[in-house]
Amino acid sequence: MVDPPARAYAHDATLARGVDGRPDAVVLPGTAEEVARTVGWCYDHGVPIVPRGGGTGLAGGAVPVDGGVVLSLERVRAVRSFDPLAWRIQVEAGITTADLRRRAREAGLVYPPDPGAADQSQIGGNIATNAGGPHAFKYGVTGAWVTGLEVVLPPGELVSLGGPVRKDAAGYDLKRLLIGSEGTLGVITAAWLRLIPAPEAELPVVGLYPDVPTGCAAIAAVLGTGLQPATLEYLDHRALAAASVRRPFPAPAATGFVVIAEADGSAAEAARLRAELVGVLDDGALGIHAPLARRDVADLWRWRAGVSQAVTARRGGKLSEDIVVPVDRLADAIQATLEIGARHDLETCSWGHAGDGNLHSTFMIDPAHPDQLARAERAAADLFELAVRLDGSISGEHGIGRVKAGRLRNSWPDALVGLHQRTKAAFDPKGLMNPQVKLP
Amino acid sequence: MVDPPARAYAHDATLARGVDGRPDAVVLPGTAEEVARTVGWCYDHGVPIVPRGGGTGLAGGAVPVDGGVVLSLERVRAVRSFDPLAWRIQVEAGITTADLRRRAREAGLVYPPDPGAADQSQIGGNIATNAGGPHAFKYGVTGAWVTGLEVVLPPGELVSLGGPVRKDAAGYDLKRLLIGSEGTLGVITAAWLRLIPAPEAELPVVGLYPDVPTGCAAIAAVLGTGLQPATLEYLDHRALAAASVRRPFPAPAATGFVVIAEADGSAAEAARLRAELVGVLDDGALGIHAPLARRDVADLWRWRAGVSQAVTARRGGKLSEDIVVPVDRLADAIQATLEIGARHDLETCSWGHAGDGNLHSTFMIDPAHPDQLARAERAAADLFELAVRLDGSISGEHGIGRVKAGRLRNSWPDALVGLHQRTKAAFDPKGLMNPQVKLP
Repeated sequence: MVDPPARAYAHDATLARGVDGRPDAVVLPGTAEEVARTVGWCYDHGVPIVPRGGGTGLAGGAVPVDGGVVLSLERVRAVRSFDPLAWRIQVEAGITTADLRRRAREAGLVYPPDPGAADQSQIGGNIATNAGGPHAFKYGVTGAWVTGLEVVLPPGELVSLGGPVRKDAAGYDLKRLLIGSEGTLGVITAAWLRLIPAPEAELPVVGLYPDVPTGCAAIAAVLGTGLQPATLEYLDHRALAAASVRRPFPAPAATGFVVIAEADGSAAEAARLRAELVGVLDDGALGIHAPLARRDVADLWRWRAGVSQAVTARRGGKLSEDIVVPVDRLADAIQATLEIGARHDLETCSWGHAGDGNLHSTFMIDPAHPDQLARAERAAADLFELAVRLDGSISGEHGIGRVKAGRLRNSWPDALVGLHQRTKAAFDPKGLMNPQVKLP
Repeated sequence: MVDPPARAYAHDATLARGVDGRPDAVVLPGTAEEVARTVGWCYDHGVPIVPRGGGTGLAGGAVPVDGGVVLSLERVRAVRSFDPLAWRIQVEAGITTADLRRRAREAGLVYPPDPGAADQSQIGGNIATNAGGPHAFKYGVTGAWVTGLEVVLPPGELVSLGGPVRKDAAGYDLKRLLIGSEGTLGVITAAWLRLIPAPEAELPVVGLYPDVPTGCAAIAAVLGTGLQPATLEYLDHRALAAASVRRPFPAPAATGFVVIAEADGSAAEAARLRAELVGVLDDGALGIHAPLARRDVADLWRWRAGVSQAVTARRGGKLSEDIVVPVDRLADAIQATLEIGARHDLETCSWGHAGDGNLHSTFMIDPAHPDQLARAERAAADLFELAVRLDGSISGEHGIGRVKAGRLRNSWPDALVGLHQRTKAAFDPKGLMNPQVKLP
């Protein structure tokens, strides 16, 4: 118990858009059993619980806006077991994504999901939001790697859903309900994860294009020729401009769109695929950058991971969404994002996971000007309508949190809204688990 | 409506172990809307509904043991849309797995899951049981390929969960609850599926070993050296003996265990991996069979797909389970299966998906001798205890159906049993969807 509640536990990465909280208390349990006792006490006393991972969330999912107990998992972070020969690890929720990936790598294995902020974000939070990242294109999002969860469910029961087995067709897949539930059903305390042998080589190919249509045509060409890169990322013109300070490759002034594909596998296979990607991406390109040295490759991905920060730095703040659309509607969505921004008189850009149709559509704002935030919120509403119109979803990886709470009502029929609420009630009859998040 | 109810809709592949039904009516709707109207009528009138796919189930999940309306999806089988350039297809539930795979292949793509009985089993049934198959080792089970479902939920609502998008972090993943729910929550009418570019080559390597420990050591060696085959299958001594009539490779008399790994990828990559697999699997082997010709490869997999039938033919009947254990407990589980069979005086064998720790532990019986079936049922109970003791699950891919209904109570704590029941009630408050299946 931290007393008085530390300010650090009152907000996440949505602070710049005005999402702030006031925890009544912050609890830092050291074990899963202590998590269970905390949930038990809160549930008995009718106190809302806000589970918290690394606090890097982009939807306000771990912010105690209406008070309650913030339950931070940062001290529950042991590696419970690691069986490299069985491609398997069991970790507690508070381990950072970077630490987990490092442990796997040291044994020649890889935990493929690579959401942003790996040094701060924790696996429990990754699971609670079903986090993605660039490599989700080939390897899937977080949930694809979870074979079991240990969770504390109301009114304070510590149970396991799944375990160290790779398949399970027995009960309902309740584990999958917890994945992406944003702390509204229970608290994840540990996870069994699948790993795979690390690829011998990872060779990115960057294509530079004059505009959105040419760049999106290159993306479509990769898919159409049946190549399978590990990533298929993009940045539009203004995202590139914002992130140009430490850009690890030259780009002609006319560059208006960037594609980053990565070839991975055995050294021979990665080299072969890299050559094929260069061939396909070259069509219509102003230039191709295809680093081979390990350090240059690392530089490229470090730069890519910093794009979100760089865009924030532009004006001091941003409102960044993560709509997802069918991959053949990507160009439409990128173009429409720019049009929506223009309509609301906002500096606008997008970047993201092209191969998954997942856009970080972003409106840049100066936090000192509340009118800009207000315009950006209206623009975001238009964006959500766009996603639904294009047969997509309002969130590909960030979740709903506080900032989009209730918006599912606009895209889901009443029957599904009701089912969502009955599912919530089946887990959390008193409605104390992260209230007001997702579909209040 | 078929009148009088056809016998063909009264049972599935569990008939030989005595699971038989008596449908009050059989309905063959032609569209999803007709499915919704049928469910609506049944729900209004308190009539139980037994959804049915190809009737190849191994757990009695589509058998109207207590009557009710059998709702067969066989006529709802259109390909609604196919977008090869976006690696995506939308199909109705009644399409056979073989037809789906053929359509994908014709466009240079692959739908990887390959459960048995592909010519009869339907995608709706595959999804309702979250079916696996040999290639699940590298590519995951059915659920990994489903991005969206169209379902009819009680009391007769036709809704979509997910859709043509590859990621979705908005609502609870209700789609994942339907996957593997065995018709107890709703009726799947259509699915959006992901596809991937077909590998250029698929080159199996068969290793022959004297006994279980040597064979399991070879499997562990593949995992330990960080090779990633597409399949990692095994057959024990008696499974091999039962399937020896049309065996497409020679096997020395001393052969007591068979491993089938498959290298896939580009032609060069598959050849490289094949050579590495031969190197690793050769250690301790009595022989290696590694066909290269496309016809020989097809022969091998056709033979493998026939193992289950061949084991049945041995005595006319069998009781075949599909427990799953952590992959490092595989040898223990194979050996314990034989011991359990011996204890109950039954001819016993196992084969299955070694890399996933998934065993088809099988007791061969003569249906004319009811005492054999009774002994086999007792042996199966021991098998389920074994799975739980080894940190595994009582079903890796067949589901619970009728034959294991209620057994989850033995492995799950009360809190989870209660949650399972509340989840069921959230979808199906009247309890009319495939009653008595899973956890009645």
